[in-house]
Amino acid sequence: MARVVVDVMLKPEILDPQGRAVQGALGRLGLSGVKDVRQGKQFVIELEGDLEGDRAALMEQLAGELLSNPVIEDFRMTVEQ
Amino acid sequence: MARVVVDVMLKPEILDPQGRAVQGALGRLGLSGVKDVRQGKQFVIELEGDLEGDRAALMEQLAGELLSNPVIEDFRMTVEQ
Repeated sequence: MARVVVDVMLKPEILDPQGRAVQGALGRLGLSGVKDVRQGKQFVIELEGDLEGDRAALMEQLAGELLSNPVIEDFRMTVEQ
Repeated sequence: MARVVVDVMLKPEILDPQGRAVQGALGRLGLSGVKDVRQGKQFVIELEGDLEGDRAALMEQLAGELLSNPVIEDFRMTVEQ
């Protein structure tokens, strides 16, 4: 069984109003020295069998096209077999 | 400088319709053997200085009360100093 984690985050040059709101809230609630907050998505996918070959290539393609928007987001995929 | 990553995920017993929709889409797009998909949030927080003592305790408290909803969500916090 494979466990795939895909982290999706706005590209650094894209404004992140949700992250900015969280940054403000953390400061108001007493946390000092907050320089930046970015908010992203995380998908945890459990697959039967190992992820390899064509299936691994398809998983990576779908992470970049279905789970994230390549115009405004970057993704990082990690696989635990 | 410290970098804090907070992963927030619905508790296992809470239904995740977004994850279920992604599971269906992955299957329709040709990925076989998808057993489960859960969708969560990820916050990446950059802080001035190291995170220790009272400030670390406050960060952990806010991760559990501001960044996540303890009724329906679990969180995991990792710190890179």
